Amino acid sequence: MIDETHDPALPCWVPEAAGHPDFPIQNLPLGIFSPPGGTPRGGVAIGGYILDLGACHAAGLLDGLAEAAIDLTLDALLTQGVAARRALRSAVSRLLSGPSQPALLHRATECSVHLPMSVGDYTDFYAGIHHATNVGRLLRADVPLTPNYKWMPLGYHGRASTVRPSGAPLRRPNGQRKRATDAEPSFGPSRNLDYELELGIWIGTGHATDAPMPIGEAASHIAGFCLLNDWSARDIQGWEYQPLGPFLGKSFFTTISPWIVTPEALAPFRAAQPTRPTDDPQPLPYLWDEADQAGGALGLTLEIWIRTAAMRAAGMPPHRLARSSALDLYWTPAQLVAHHASNGCNLRSGDLLGSGTISSATQGSEGSLLELTRGGREPFALAGGESRRFLEDGDEVTLTGHAVRDGFATIGFGPCVGTVLSAA
Amino acid sequence: MIDETHDPALPCWVPEAAGHPDFPIQNLPLGIFSPPGGTPRGGVAIGGYILDLGACHAAGLLDGLAEAAIDLTLDALLTQGVAARRALRSAVSRLLSGPSQPALLHRATECSVHLPMSVGDYTDFYAGIHHATNVGRLLRADVPLTPNYKWMPLGYHGRASTVRPSGAPLRRPNGQRKRATDAEPSFGPSRNLDYELELGIWIGTGHATDAPMPIGEAASHIAGFCLLNDWSARDIQGWEYQPLGPFLGKSFFTTISPWIVTPEALAPFRAAQPTRPTDDPQPLPYLWDEADQAGGALGLTLEIWIRTAAMRAAGMPPHRLARSSALDLYWTPAQLVAHHASNGCNLRSGDLLGSGTISSATQGSEGSLLELTRGGREPFALAGGESRRFLEDGDEVTLTGHAVRDGFATIGFGPCVGTVLSAA
Repeated sequence: MIDETHDPALPCWVPEAAGHPDFPIQNLPLGIFSPPGGTPRGGVAIGGYILDLGACHAAGLLDGLAEAAIDLTLDALLTQGVAARRALRSAVSRLLSGPSQPALLHRATECSVHLPMSVGDYTDFYAGIHHATNVGRLLRADVPLTPNYKWMPLGYHGRASTVRPSGAPLRRPNGQRKRATDAEPSFGPSRNLDYELELGIWIGTGHATDAPMPIGEAASHIAGFCLLNDWSARDIQGWEYQPLGPFLGKSFFTTISPWIVTPEALAPFRAAQPTRPTDDPQPLPYLWDEADQAGGALGLTLEIWIRTAAMRAAGMPPHRLARSSALDLYWTPAQLVAHHASNGCNLRSGDLLGSGTISSATQGSEGSLLELTRGGREPFALAGGESRRFLEDGDEVTLTGHAVRDGFATIGFGPCVGTVLSAA
Repeated sequence: MIDETHDPALPCWVPEAAGHPDFPIQNLPLGIFSPPGGTPRGGVAIGGYILDLGACHAAGLLDGLAEAAIDLTLDALLTQGVAARRALRSAVSRLLSGPSQPALLHRATECSVHLPMSVGDYTDFYAGIHHATNVGRLLRADVPLTPNYKWMPLGYHGRASTVRPSGAPLRRPNGQRKRATDAEPSFGPSRNLDYELELGIWIGTGHATDAPMPIGEAASHIAGFCLLNDWSARDIQGWEYQPLGPFLGKSFFTTISPWIVTPEALAPFRAAQPTRPTDDPQPLPYLWDEADQAGGALGLTLEIWIRTAAMRAAGMPPHRLARSSALDLYWTPAQLVAHHASNGCNLRSGDLLGSGTISSATQGSEGSLLELTRGGREPFALAGGESRRFLEDGDEVTLTGHAVRDGFATIGFGPCVGTVLSAA
């Protein structure tokens, strides 16, 4: 639903909010932050600042709607669902376009950010069809996609305890690695550390065990979206993953952008799910909803940037590695949620779903180094003369994502950043 | 450490405790229960009763050691580690062998049991080598085990939100299934529902992200053990599991026995890890500890029982499907924990690890119907004239586990029961 909160001419008294690349007043993403010396609480990113929902509530503002945000997570707020989220968005929009109240703000650079929800379970899907095809080609040149790929959203359970907010450094994992030329595996630091560009989906309203979930209801369980970097140690993964799938090659770290961009903020950027090739199967009825096909996809431009230690030392800006589109997901967010619940598995407020790595069809859109360097065989040249097959210690990787449409203010996720530390 | 709490001649004032097949005074497993009309709290299973740790603490008993058990989970108690667990065990043992105090007890049959810990993350391993071999043979007759099997404990992340205590009925899952003769998959109730007999391992003291975990320290993170039924929908699993491993074929339900049998209770039943065949690889140093090899395995006899709706109607007792031994795990519990932490992944109090399905080498020891009926091809005859390829609605499956040693009281886990309801 597009309403007055999306008006591109909406005034805002917060400095730097107008024209902010991620957080103008038309976005209003939710998160958990700590101001200097303060405890964690709910907030709204606005320009270079954070609106303190705890302070708003204490001042009797926002009609009591922010009460549930005075907590260590947004679970209690976001479990309330669409109507509560919309009411809060409208109230915050009015507050920020009304008379100036700078005491409610903190400078974002002076605050720390936390996980916005409790991450009860984290599930990682594989819905980026160009990524799945690119990776499949490295393993099985003739039949890159497994026979089930176009019938259902493939996914696996990920590790919830190592999901971290943007800015937390990650340590290169140790593990068992075995090159084709090695007679035996050895244990040591991963030699093939990679990133994966994904969209994260936060569950707001949970879903009971065994309860049917019609596909038309699935989107109502989504509280919002983030960027997600599914860091992957390709050598550990390659040696361990048969027959049970990814485990220690991915469980060491997952980085998310800390602000939940809501379905309300993204309403103007909804798109039709791209038409499938005619020889692709028609999705089974539990995954098929006309309204979801007509407007359930997300028109988002996603980018990956790298800045090496040498680039930082030389004062160089980040180098862009790739740009892709969320329209290259083969399944909509609602289809991922409906499939997840289809076997009777419950969903809880705070569950996190990854979309799978998003690559587009063209060169320069690869969502991982595995694809960009063809399994490490073709090094990628960086500005400044360096090159990468896989990540080196000190490399800083940043994901960004933006929604752009004529006649609307551009909104974004804010950066999703992680810097690689040397192995323990 | 074997001490006075293991004395087989220890008196106990609780009725039915002496000679109880699971819960004599030498066991003292911990759990969370609700007495009739009461709220959840910590307890100790003793004979046919539950000792109320909340009531003990309120009465000034147990030297304040039970204070952390007055909570909705045992996380706060069990994160304290070995010394706190030992002190509580000694105090409870003295209390139950001293003067009678029946007001501290509730009849177990009148109470409800809950999950004992919070299950932050649930990981399922695959350490039962005979199971892995049996299953591998169905898929790849010539090379049943993948090349990595004997080098590391294989595992995958499971779904934490659907772990349930014994007694909770499970609904047959719906999902995509595709028989070899089907041109396309269809969505509907699983036709090949199965159980899997596993040992569960509870993490007590957590472990920090990136912190090294020497294998000699790994066992100290284990708070105790339970039985675990990793219910599996073989048809859903078979169609979905390539390339990312098990997902909806297992995420619908996992049943555990609700009492945590502690390492202290199991001290007399520790055993050497069986010697590996000489052509098996020597485990890498991060998985190798002499003391763990000498006494880190568990001598447990495990059984699977079935009672169908027709058997219940006829008043027939359960029929035993299999009996196996936990000594047929290829890796010790400490090796599973050390491998899990080896890439820097943190562990949290309440994390649950499954061992993988435990089958022994001989016929009659198969830990799943998949093995027992050779993928459903050879129906298994039950007392009363019925037979099973896979589970039918109304089937009640019970796992049991016991530790038996001459000169010591037998202890057990109590039953791990689930009954199959028809699909939604």
